[in-house]
Amino acid sequence: MTTPPDPLHVSCPAPRTDQSTVQLAHGGGGRMMRTLIEGILLPCFHGGQDAGRRLPPHDSAVVDVGGTRLAFTTDSFVVSPLFFPGGDIGKLAVYGTVNDLAMAGARPLYLSCGLILEEGTPLDTVRRVVQSMQCAAEEVGVQIVTGDTKVVDRGKADGIFINTAGVGIVPDGIEVHPARVAAGDKILLSGDIGRHGIAIMSLREGLQFDGAPESDCASLADLVSQLTRLGARLHCLRDLTRGGLAAALIEIADHVGVGMELHETAIPIVPQVRGACELLGLDPLYVANEGRLVAIVEPGAAQQALEILAAHPAAHGAAVIGEVTQRHPREVELLNAFGTGRLLDLLSGEQMPRIC
Amino acid sequence: MTTPPDPLHVSCPAPRTDQSTVQLAHGGGGRMMRTLIEGILLPCFHGGQDAGRRLPPHDSAVVDVGGTRLAFTTDSFVVSPLFFPGGDIGKLAVYGTVNDLAMAGARPLYLSCGLILEEGTPLDTVRRVVQSMQCAAEEVGVQIVTGDTKVVDRGKADGIFINTAGVGIVPDGIEVHPARVAAGDKILLSGDIGRHGIAIMSLREGLQFDGAPESDCASLADLVSQLTRLGARLHCLRDLTRGGLAAALIEIADHVGVGMELHETAIPIVPQVRGACELLGLDPLYVANEGRLVAIVEPGAAQQALEILAAHPAAHGAAVIGEVTQRHPREVELLNAFGTGRLLDLLSGEQMPRIC
Repeated sequence: MTTPPDPLHVSCPAPRTDQSTVQLAHGGGGRMMRTLIEGILLPCFHGGQDAGRRLPPHDSAVVDVGGTRLAFTTDSFVVSPLFFPGGDIGKLAVYGTVNDLAMAGARPLYLSCGLILEEGTPLDTVRRVVQSMQCAAEEVGVQIVTGDTKVVDRGKADGIFINTAGVGIVPDGIEVHPARVAAGDKILLSGDIGRHGIAIMSLREGLQFDGAPESDCASLADLVSQLTRLGARLHCLRDLTRGGLAAALIEIADHVGVGMELHETAIPIVPQVRGACELLGLDPLYVANEGRLVAIVEPGAAQQALEILAAHPAAHGAAVIGEVTQRHPREVELLNAFGTGRLLDLLSGEQMPRIC
Repeated sequence: MTTPPDPLHVSCPAPRTDQSTVQLAHGGGGRMMRTLIEGILLPCFHGGQDAGRRLPPHDSAVVDVGGTRLAFTTDSFVVSPLFFPGGDIGKLAVYGTVNDLAMAGARPLYLSCGLILEEGTPLDTVRRVVQSMQCAAEEVGVQIVTGDTKVVDRGKADGIFINTAGVGIVPDGIEVHPARVAAGDKILLSGDIGRHGIAIMSLREGLQFDGAPESDCASLADLVSQLTRLGARLHCLRDLTRGGLAAALIEIADHVGVGMELHETAIPIVPQVRGACELLGLDPLYVANEGRLVAIVEPGAAQQALEILAAHPAAHGAAVIGEVTQRHPREVELLNAFGTGRLLDLLSGEQMPRIC
């Protein structure tokens, strides 16, 4: 007699992972993106004056141009939808590249703008996006000085994609990059996390609730210029984008070979983000941001750094959230209120496609 | 008695032109692209130190960085298909931006690379393209120092789109831009025209014929560095891309307010391109190139310029093709063997979408 199938245990075929083609997760800021970058892209490209150190791939390069240290970076923007609470693709495209320059300690100066437009996109939409870029650029004090426009046939893009590249000058005395991170350093976070990702996901999922968070999309350039008053005591800056706070710190820890310990109760998360994360099954530590940074500083500079952050309008609930340690190198541990720790790891990256 | 309809004169409704949405022609390098750029884009963006002069929009910007003249430019690449006789999107993406820098008289130094990948694209294709970029960069002597990768869902892109931005240094004594063009200047062309566009269109249309032209996709940086030996007698450089020779010269003439006269028999066109153009109903003067430039020089420098071009491997059949004139300002006249002239005008731009 055959055993009848157990209706409570349905045997599902294992999900097929196509390892030979590009997956959405390759763009998700997680482990698969890292695999793509380190496996295919980095071997072909150099890293400017830091080529020997192999900077984490999304950092600005800093190159010497006639005796001036020039920061140079690029970002493409494929966010969907184009317009969302708190921002739009145009604003993102300006702030995103400005912030990347700022994370090298640079004063952002000039941007380029490459547009890829889908046939059939309303010209009014293009106009709105470009005007939004102009406003954002004027607010930050950068100039968009060169550009390009391409059009592809209907169905071969999605409205508007934007690439911005940017250049800026790194002042003398500022050495801000992951290699300066050392055991004992304090880790500061400029504000509450998760707003941008939740603003996008709420819109996509049709979540309507009072006080739904807007994107935190903002320039960090002025905040960074204040932080540079710390001089050489400012070791590293990283803006939090795809993959959130967790991905940003895991990448630094792994690249530099240090450990980190974070205090869960110190990490600011507003209730609306926490609630939406629960609804959507997301971990706020991995949710994208577009106006937050971590600053890693010498222990003696932590208090001054916190005061600088607390006084700045771009920081919302700044806090010291942890420290760099010699223990468990390359790993980031999250300690809860009871002191119990769990290791944070990169997610695969499928959570939130096209978030920026 | 009603008049029977004349079967030889079918009344067709006028084609509908949707003026409220993006059209393929907006990316074609012709009149509609100019309308888009001047109507929507330029009003929002600055032009670096030439902001007062409003450079033609696809030129590199030249900005001052710590006392050094830095050329800065960007281009996006959406060519279809990705691989074509004589090149691929990766090579194009490197050479295209290198050439834009060279047209400002700059020595190209560093590039950025922004990839937009469509879900489902074979990783091997990505690898091939990136390796092609690496080879092209090494050949030219530039470094790709920073980058970004985004992935969009299937059906929201087309395989691979690439943006490259680039920076380079303009040496002292070199002032190369359209504003220097003056009546009496000679116009030189570095080689035969139309190969790139015909290579692409032949592939798309399934044309198979002996000796079908390959793309002329190539770096012009070294050729330009030779031309800079002309010093201040070198007035203007322009690489021929979308819209071909005609668009490049019409844009300069119109922007600067001069006239130009071209000698049709002096313009080199290889027979295979001429034949394919006839088959496809294209005018070679408007067909895209990716490895050709025009140089506009003082009349006394024309002979030396021609010798420099003729001696360089990147030039194929270089020739003096015309001169700048005070007559018919803002217009380019093409004179045939009998001395009869016709005015060249920008086409609308629908001829060849996604050519680069």
